[in-house]
Amino acid sequence: MRTLKLTIAYDGTRYVGWQIQKGRRPTIQGTLERVLKQILREPVKVVGSGRTDAGVHALAQVAHVRTHSAMPRHRLLRSVNALLPSDISVPKIEEAEPSFHARFHAVSKRYRYRIFLGGVVPPFIRPYVHHVPRPLNLSLMRREAAALAGRHDFRAFAQAARRRRGTIRRLTDIQVIRRGSELQVEVEGSGFLHTMVRSIVGTLLDVGRGRLPAGTIRRMLRRGDRRLAGMTAPAHGLALVSVTYPDETC
Amino acid sequence: MRTLKLTIAYDGTRYVGWQIQKGRRPTIQGTLERVLKQILREPVKVVGSGRTDAGVHALAQVAHVRTHSAMPRHRLLRSVNALLPSDISVPKIEEAEPSFHARFHAVSKRYRYRIFLGGVVPPFIRPYVHHVPRPLNLSLMRREAAALAGRHDFRAFAQAARRRRGTIRRLTDIQVIRRGSELQVEVEGSGFLHTMVRSIVGTLLDVGRGRLPAGTIRRMLRRGDRRLAGMTAPAHGLALVSVTYPDETC
Repeated sequence: MRTLKLTIAYDGTRYVGWQIQKGRRPTIQGTLERVLKQILREPVKVVGSGRTDAGVHALAQVAHVRTHSAMPRHRLLRSVNALLPSDISVPKIEEAEPSFHARFHAVSKRYRYRIFLGGVVPPFIRPYVHHVPRPLNLSLMRREAAALAGRHDFRAFAQAARRRRGTIRRLTDIQVIRRGSELQVEVEGSGFLHTMVRSIVGTLLDVGRGRLPAGTIRRMLRRGDRRLAGMTAPAHGLALVSVTYPDETC
Repeated sequence: MRTLKLTIAYDGTRYVGWQIQKGRRPTIQGTLERVLKQILREPVKVVGSGRTDAGVHALAQVAHVRTHSAMPRHRLLRSVNALLPSDISVPKIEEAEPSFHARFHAVSKRYRYRIFLGGVVPPFIRPYVHHVPRPLNLSLMRREAAALAGRHDFRAFAQAARRRRGTIRRLTDIQVIRRGSELQVEVEGSGFLHTMVRSIVGTLLDVGRGRLPAGTIRRMLRRGDRRLAGMTAPAHGLALVSVTYPDETC
């Protein structure tokens, strides 16, 4: 039995999300499992580092599969990419420790949220950016964002139904970066609650355009009250950028 | 009567080309005329700097329209972009001299052809790059390309049926540029024959991978013989980058 570590890029536009869901298709996981089964001639389970929501993209999602197949990696890589639809690709397949687990062993994840500030969105990036043509107070947004760094109870940024397994998380990095006509919010942390990044971005945008007062983020963290939050930014602006593992697992 | 100069960006993937063609749809020109008619409440003709083929993209195509409407430019810009499908956008509308003509006054055009050299194409750029995972001799391709600069009879790079109006053209610039995992061929000139850029790129690639001998381009220019040419590179790797006009026309 081998364990393979897959790095996966996808345009999430036409998918209902990463994870296989009863009666809802297509999913990234389901598409990968179908293609791998066809190539490896055995059913395999593709275990991702975590789910991404409907419409969210990934530059380098990570997953593992366990297989009895002895097929050389370069042949597998070629076959997988030949059979996958054009909006999913697998740039890398590595041999991993037999016990490697893409979800349990993930140390941190980095997400990027892209906001297009110009008047007219170029058609080539339209599926990947949220369009905000209004003026934004960037220095205010940066001050607000800084309050999120570190270990906090993020319950005010989570959807009520999904809070059962604890809402304490650690954000190791948060950046509000101006890149040409775009504003990008990058966050890195050990884990994220459901829609947490989009709720952070939506609240930052509402502060930046003056709809919510300065200090909103700090109050949300202190009181744990979701009713203080701004909008949840739309899914298509979000991408999982990378997943980090300790050196020894693969 | 006003003349407006429009700058237009489009993803050509799902279009049969720029120009309205009898019974074939959709076209970029047709889509723009439909939207402008709806906004300006009069039929208008959108005259482009030139046609682009089915599947070819544009970062900044230029066109003119003449209209009786007095609608302010910023309102027109907003309305046009609100009504256009997401794969066409109009980043700029300017007032031009009444006699400005997007095709007749164009001084030069610049095209970029994108070749992806890596093993696996990222899904986000798949519609815009031609995938060539084989090794290429770049210095040989650069030497070959250099022979194209200047004034030549390009009949060997044109489709037979379209050669009637003369085949002499001037290439003012040709570059073979390595950018990360991509090889980009950029050409600028006063005008181009039908499929000329794709024929240049296809021949350069065939020389670069050793299918055609060094000196092929020089022989093609000298003999005017299309049978010496390599393949015609696929349309989806090509984009019209910019169109230049003399300062006084707009």
